[in-house]
Amino acid sequence: MISSKINLHEKFSKFTNHWSPRVIAEMNDYHFKIAKIKGEFVWHNHKDTDETFIVFEGEMILKFKDKQVKLSEGEMFVVPKGVEHKPCAKKECKILVVEPRGVINTGDAGGKFTMTEDIWI
Amino acid sequence: MISSKINLHEKFSKFTNHWSPRVIAEMNDYHFKIAKIKGEFVWHNHKDTDETFIVFEGEMILKFKDKQVKLSEGEMFVVPKGVEHKPCAKKECKILVVEPRGVINTGDAGGKFTMTEDIWI
Repeated sequence: MISSKINLHEKFSKFTNHWSPRVIAEMNDYHFKIAKIKGEFVWHNHKDTDETFIVFEGEMILKFKDKQVKLSEGEMFVVPKGVEHKPCAKKECKILVVEPRGVINTGDAGGKFTMTEDIWI
Repeated sequence: MISSKINLHEKFSKFTNHWSPRVIAEMNDYHFKIAKIKGEFVWHNHKDTDETFIVFEGEMILKFKDKQVKLSEGEMFVVPKGVEHKPCAKKECKILVVEPRGVINTGDAGGKFTMTEDIWI
C-alpha cells in the first residue's frame, strides 16, 4: 500500500497560478486534477473524451455554443466528447477536473494556456 | 447538448438508504456514484480496477489489512486494484465514488450489501 489520502484544501494551498491544473491523483488511466480559474479560458473541445468538472469552491461558468451553465460549489458537469466549451470565472474558483491521463487542457486549440506536461502536486 | 449540471446536495436529498450507491453521472465508461454510509461494510476488493472515494460530508474510515485511514470532508483516497478494503463510518457519511461502469460494490465478496444493478438518481 503506497497510497495515502489526499486533502483537497491542502493541495489547493500549494499553488496560486490560474488555469494551471495540477494532478493530485491517478485512478487506472484517469487523472484527478485541481485548478484555480479566473477570467476566460479558450474555446476548445476534446475529440476523444468526456471531461468532468466539479466545483470545490466559488462559481464558474461553462460556456457552450448554444447555452451557458453556472456551476456553484457542490455542482458538477460532464462535458461530452467533441463539444466545444469555454470555462470562465468572474472571481477565482477552485475546481476538480477528472479526465483520462494525457488530455491536453486546451484540446487542439493551443495558445498560452496550453499545459505541455503533467504537474503533480 | 443533453447534459445538464448535477447538484450533489440535491442528489443526496433524494434517498436515505445506507450502502446503496446511486449513479449520478457518466464520463466515458466511468460512473460517478454517491452513497450514504454508516456502520461497517464488508471486506472486499476489485480485481480489475482502482476505486476512488471522496468524502462530501462527514467522516469515514477506510480499513485495510495493514492500516486504516480516516477521511474527512474534502479528502479522497484511491484504493488500488486488488487491495482488500472495508469502508466504515461511525456516523452517517456522504461520499462520492468514481469507478468504471459495472463495478460491483462488494467485489467478489457478495452478501446483503451487493447491488445487482445500477440505480440512477
